[in-house]
Amino acid sequence: MSGYFITLEGGEGAGKTSVLQLLEQTLLEKGFDVLATREPGGIEIAEKIRHIILDPVHTAMDSRTEALLYAAARRQHLMEKVLPALEQGKIVLCDRFIDSSLAYQGYARGLGIDEVFAINQFAIQNCMPDLTLFFDIEPKKGLERIIANKDREKNRLDLEELHFHEQVYKAYHLLVKKFPKRIQIIDAEQSLEQVNIQVMKKIERFIQFKDYKI
Amino acid sequence: MSGYFITLEGGEGAGKTSVLQLLEQTLLEKGFDVLATREPGGIEIAEKIRHIILDPVHTAMDSRTEALLYAAARRQHLMEKVLPALEQGKIVLCDRFIDSSLAYQGYARGLGIDEVFAINQFAIQNCMPDLTLFFDIEPKKGLERIIANKDREKNRLDLEELHFHEQVYKAYHLLVKKFPKRIQIIDAEQSLEQVNIQVMKKIERFIQFKDYKI
Repeated sequence: MSGYFITLEGGEGAGKTSVLQLLEQTLLEKGFDVLATREPGGIEIAEKIRHIILDPVHTAMDSRTEALLYAAARRQHLMEKVLPALEQGKIVLCDRFIDSSLAYQGYARGLGIDEVFAINQFAIQNCMPDLTLFFDIEPKKGLERIIANKDREKNRLDLEELHFHEQVYKAYHLLVKKFPKRIQIIDAEQSLEQVNIQVMKKIERFIQFKDYKI
Repeated sequence: MSGYFITLEGGEGAGKTSVLQLLEQTLLEKGFDVLATREPGGIEIAEKIRHIILDPVHTAMDSRTEALLYAAARRQHLMEKVLPALEQGKIVLCDRFIDSSLAYQGYARGLGIDEVFAINQFAIQNCMPDLTLFFDIEPKKGLERIIANKDREKNRLDLEELHFHEQVYKAYHLLVKKFPKRIQIIDAEQSLEQVNIQVMKKIERFIQFKDYKI
């Protein structure tokens, strides 16, 4: 049987990464076979690509270069990690996927959602997520969380101004309208535990609907 | 005024790189303002991308990842080096460009010429070469040249089997038919000096046709 591909999306500081760990644990305890990952996900080629993208030294990086690099890293991670797990029937939880590129590069960087969708289609070949959870939090609150969390490594994207993150936020809401069945909204301004409960409800409803047998 | 964008294309061992240096010298002596370059062309981001592509360790690299990485490196080199030179009115000679991706990834790797053209269009935004010189040499002869030249650093592509290079060769001939005005054939089985003479004739005819003023 083939598994389920679930992606977590949202702006900076939305808490996706923290929830991902908790979520993986909850699903494992319920007896599901789970792979929790994020691009580049320990895939050597994809890690090296991500390193180029996020290196703060690369201020000359063009937005289209960046979009193509994200698509390249996505492809490799999909082929080496996500697809094999789906083929094994696992629930794959992935922190960010195609919608991040549509929101960040397609909309906020102004390259066009459809254009960025096209290069990502080249990368993923119709392997769209079955379910996407959008972690909805006001950009200002999300950035405040990041600033408060001094342990978190600052990367180039964190240094972008608030305006950019507001554009990203707007983009995600556009995507929710564009893909109303696939993308579900999670209120990410609540506590980690509350968010996890919301997420689990969405996933259980989805799995029930899809007649998942464990 | 805007300059002229001339690309050199062909399989392995076609002698493009050697001719490029000679050609640059000849054009400079004739009083032209020239930039001779090749992707990644010393552009830091593009160099790093090329390093990922050509590292022989990366045997797990998917063809689509590779195609996206080439497009990314192309974009950055175009923005940082080629376009500024064209804007200064220079003749830009570039060793490999979009046709390499169409031949290698699009045709020989089987991704489809049109699909690979599309992601490259995202990268170059209609900045196609004004003139492309295809260095025509039988793949077997080209590979023999490489093997004879022990100083040349072996990379991942050189290790591919002859069949692959025959596919690349076939692809270039398809591209010549697809773009008959832009792509001109050079007999690359001749000596370096003879090839340079052929190339100079093509370029001078092109420049005359285009009413280039120096």
